Amino acid sequence: MEKTTDIHITVYPFEVDFREKLTLPLLVNQLLNVAGVHADTHGFGINELNKNGHTWVLSRLAVEITNLPKKDEKLTLRTWVESLMRTFTLRNFAIFREDGTPIGYARSIWAMIDVQTRKPINLMGIGIEPFLSKEIDCPIQRGGKIPTPENYTEETFTVHYSDLDINKHLNSAKYVEHIMDGFSLEELDHHNIQRFEIEYLEECHFGDKITVRKSSQAQDNHTEHIFVLRNEKDEIVCKSKICTVKND
Amino acid sequence: MEKTTDIHITVYPFEVDFREKLTLPLLVNQLLNVAGVHADTHGFGINELNKNGHTWVLSRLAVEITNLPKKDEKLTLRTWVESLMRTFTLRNFAIFREDGTPIGYARSIWAMIDVQTRKPINLMGIGIEPFLSKEIDCPIQRGGKIPTPENYTEETFTVHYSDLDINKHLNSAKYVEHIMDGFSLEELDHHNIQRFEIEYLEECHFGDKITVRKSSQAQDNHTEHIFVLRNEKDEIVCKSKICTVKND
Repeated sequence: MEKTTDIHITVYPFEVDFREKLTLPLLVNQLLNVAGVHADTHGFGINELNKNGHTWVLSRLAVEITNLPKKDEKLTLRTWVESLMRTFTLRNFAIFREDGTPIGYARSIWAMIDVQTRKPINLMGIGIEPFLSKEIDCPIQRGGKIPTPENYTEETFTVHYSDLDINKHLNSAKYVEHIMDGFSLEELDHHNIQRFEIEYLEECHFGDKITVRKSSQAQDNHTEHIFVLRNEKDEIVCKSKICTVKND
Repeated sequence: MEKTTDIHITVYPFEVDFREKLTLPLLVNQLLNVAGVHADTHGFGINELNKNGHTWVLSRLAVEITNLPKKDEKLTLRTWVESLMRTFTLRNFAIFREDGTPIGYARSIWAMIDVQTRKPINLMGIGIEPFLSKEIDCPIQRGGKIPTPENYTEETFTVHYSDLDINKHLNSAKYVEHIMDGFSLEELDHHNIQRFEIEYLEECHFGDKITVRKSSQAQDNHTEHIFVLRNEKDEIVCKSKICTVKND
């Protein structure tokens, strides 16, 4: 059996932003979709897991892309599982243009938990090993520790119906949407996103008020934006680091 | 040439809500996508229009659906233009399951405007007539006048980056998302959306603070929810009427 799974998407007019580029949250959403299809196909998808009261939880995601695809472009999103540890699995992604040129890659880390106890499940010997694949290269760095800056601007949002996934938690791609909403149009108009990294720490529920703190620091040839999201208990629910480069 | 255009979609895990159903905003988004593909294919898409400084503006949309599709379902979305008036065109939609069963329909009204003057363009004789089609039935009522209720609950949102379309206006499907966010989880858990209607009145821009007023009225066998969205100038930017029916 194939160890990789592909989905083919077209970038439709209502999936692009004012720059006519596919939005990062929608790209992340599609990566999670192909991950779901891959897991389903190989017998460890959430439908199967739910029978035992288990589910997958995304812990980290790093995406690098040379340039977000434009309206009408056709893409292939490919995923495979690179390796397995006791409580984590590393899943990689590659993003191809229609002609087969790779334009981006992603790395993700997932845990399997018991829905009731929220405790991690041992991933060894439950049928994932036969599908591990190292044949494909994923030439981007793993996500690293993201700092908590002292200076920041702050905005808040409330978790609504449209933010929720099947489990009534803030949808992983919606974290990305709320993070991207911390940017001004000027920042996005003149910069491309080169690398995006996110670390998921706490689940968010309907009605939660989430504070988004953003701190931007110019580096030699790029700008590093750190986002720290906190709930009302002042717990950090997620951290993100986005590197942007000038596009002119 | 075919007068209709189809797109085929799969309902992926990250496109469903906590009820495991495709969300209404995503369905609307896909309807707008197939409309875009149809117009492009027939020579009157926005890329073509932009060359003359024109664009399409969605004025009204009504959607009826027996039950929103669930995760993993495959759908075909079909669109065609039913008729043409001097400043408006009526575009219809049908939604089919994989086996060809129709599960929903939609009707929409569009105007073409000059991007600079915002004035409507005469739609007669510009190449749309050959593609008019009345062969397919669209057995749902057109949208009617939506009242402005006196009693309501109120929430607000600010227009952010992720809300914007190519023209830097609030994306038509994002209006729907912000409207749906006026529902509680209890309302959505125990009711199905039977009919959704929206009337777009004003464009919204980055940073606009929009007030969403919701008024719900139980009728004989359904509940009617009216949503009125206003900007800071107290202009009504859109109205929506949603009929829900108990699902148990």
